[in-house]
Amino acid sequence: MKIRSTKQQLLNAVNIAGRAVAVKTTMPILECLLITADNMGISIMANDGEMAVNTLIPSEKCEVAEAGTIAVEAKLLSEILRKISSSDDAEVILSSDGNLVEISSGKAMFRIQEKDPVQFPELPSVNENVKVILSEFTLKEIVRDTIFSISLNDSNRMMTGELFEIKDNVLTVIALDGHRVSIRNTPLTASYDHVRTIIPGKTLSEVSKIISGDAEKNVVISFDPNYVSFRFDETLMLSRIIDGDYFRIESMLTSDYDTKITVNKKEFLDAIEQSTVLIRENDKKPLVLKIEEEKLGLRVNSLIGSLDASLPAEKTGADLMIAFNPKFLLDALRVIDEETVTLYMTNSKAPCFIRDEKKTYIYLILPVNFNPAAY
Amino acid sequence: MKIRSTKQQLLNAVNIAGRAVAVKTTMPILECLLITADNMGISIMANDGEMAVNTLIPSEKCEVAEAGTIAVEAKLLSEILRKISSSDDAEVILSSDGNLVEISSGKAMFRIQEKDPVQFPELPSVNENVKVILSEFTLKEIVRDTIFSISLNDSNRMMTGELFEIKDNVLTVIALDGHRVSIRNTPLTASYDHVRTIIPGKTLSEVSKIISGDAEKNVVISFDPNYVSFRFDETLMLSRIIDGDYFRIESMLTSDYDTKITVNKKEFLDAIEQSTVLIRENDKKPLVLKIEEEKLGLRVNSLIGSLDASLPAEKTGADLMIAFNPKFLLDALRVIDEETVTLYMTNSKAPCFIRDEKKTYIYLILPVNFNPAAY
Repeated sequence: MKIRSTKQQLLNAVNIAGRAVAVKTTMPILECLLITADNMGISIMANDGEMAVNTLIPSEKCEVAEAGTIAVEAKLLSEILRKISSSDDAEVILSSDGNLVEISSGKAMFRIQEKDPVQFPELPSVNENVKVILSEFTLKEIVRDTIFSISLNDSNRMMTGELFEIKDNVLTVIALDGHRVSIRNTPLTASYDHVRTIIPGKTLSEVSKIISGDAEKNVVISFDPNYVSFRFDETLMLSRIIDGDYFRIESMLTSDYDTKITVNKKEFLDAIEQSTVLIRENDKKPLVLKIEEEKLGLRVNSLIGSLDASLPAEKTGADLMIAFNPKFLLDALRVIDEETVTLYMTNSKAPCFIRDEKKTYIYLILPVNFNPAAY
Repeated sequence: MKIRSTKQQLLNAVNIAGRAVAVKTTMPILECLLITADNMGISIMANDGEMAVNTLIPSEKCEVAEAGTIAVEAKLLSEILRKISSSDDAEVILSSDGNLVEISSGKAMFRIQEKDPVQFPELPSVNENVKVILSEFTLKEIVRDTIFSISLNDSNRMMTGELFEIKDNVLTVIALDGHRVSIRNTPLTASYDHVRTIIPGKTLSEVSKIISGDAEKNVVISFDPNYVSFRFDETLMLSRIIDGDYFRIESMLTSDYDTKITVNKKEFLDAIEQSTVLIRENDKKPLVLKIEEEKLGLRVNSLIGSLDASLPAEKTGADLMIAFNPKFLLDALRVIDEETVTLYMTNSKAPCFIRDEKKTYIYLILPVNFNPAAY
């Protein structure tokens, strides 16, 4: 194999595919990139066993002097490419004799050991019949707005993924961890078949790192009984899905409430940030919200000290004192782009809902117990 | 005590003094700031036992409603000030009843426990007769240009500091770690008494983080038999010195050489950076320089792979092959601001000198053993 391209083209492709390189593995071949050169161009692939990424440098952006396939350690190749020249436009030549790869640019030449490409796992064949098309911008937003509320603890594997459900031309994405539920409803412009599948959180965060977030570019998501795939630009990302029947949460999603308040989002966020100064991991004191006429009070009373803050609020319904883990409020507020947010509550034991009128986002957060006399 | 100032003034002073707050200590009072309010203004002090910083918010920039002294946990106060308002100009009020400090701004009020200020160590009295004045810019440069070559391992305590020697109206600063020596000579505009003192590396790196680096602002450095002090702006930094008779290195500083090469600094730096891709901690392979007519070759041969690079060079004297730990070359080259650098060498066993004509900087680096047949 012998190929030529620019430092930038190669490094970009290596970084994209690199998202699926295995980090801790007993199979060293999964730490490699498989590089295939043919008349299509140069394709670079990684596969960590759960997820695979294949990206192409099309033939018009590179030169394939000799077709072939090699496997090389991903991290090493990426470091070499980063340092081989200070210019992004520098020409880089990769050539292999089946044992060593030579990587050269200008007056620098690296020689590193190849791995056996035959050991590299083949991509499963996937049925790409059931598709939905989103803009890169929309997919990135959906992931950003929900991914924080998956569970990182895989004692319940379904909680480490997100439900993608398409029904009545709406894509509903749900993430939950037992303390909260985050929901994003996205109207779709076309009509699609019913889909209900659980995509691993890791797959979603990696795909959202690779895509640019451009509103003019599309991602085609295909659903197979065992896999999900994302196609965009010159890249295919393929991932196993999580088996199981996802939680039925419809019954939790009441629209009734006894207390409703609307506050400025930034003021609320700043006040909650203040409360976190006094709340440490090993001292699980809650943030208490004291909802009164025209006013939202925030109180903390911890081993470290106390905080008493307030902000103006528009209130409908009854006064209420209710307590939360401030992290869950912060996570939701940080991804809401509106200037004001509205909270819907029933009592101090029932879930609080943060949602917009159209329910494009719904954040359900469970309150925590507290002793009202202390606040 | 009751004081008023802006978030920015207070936070800035807390951050400056915070440089001397103890991190791991068995004396909790050393994790505190001592805040004293009187007719001078508000002074904030920290002392970790080795080093103390005292900084003043002068009375024209604050309001002392009630004089007094308090001690509060430094980290907590800094976090509260950072989050108490989103505006740097917001007024912050600190008031103490001798048990709790109230810190308030706008509609937020924190209450935290005070510590007993009586426990706070007093500053030693220091003789400030022997002084030298440098600009903040010059002091920052001197530290940046040498600090990397102190030893982090304190088996030889003198190597963890830097020699500051004033003689014949030149300030010579030396740092060495057994593998290399870094020297900065700074001509002084005034005449000073002879000084030879070892300043702890930590003191120098902290002072250079606090000072702005402004060429128009001065730092007054005073030398006492046991202490060194730095005065700048409204701040005093005081530190113990390291006892001992510093290494006499004059005999190592020969000006003789058999091979001299001049290369473009950035090209040389980039090529050495490349070599580090192949050299890992646990595989101490050297970087071999092959000096020939008009050309500097760089070779690495490690378990990971090989590198062969070259750059144009102006050479005087004999051809030479010589090997180095690339880190030591990198550290020196990164702080040299000139476009070209010149290396002076005798043979593959003798130190290499990187220095300018006027010897404002001298980097002596010991070569390492290698097997010439393998390169």
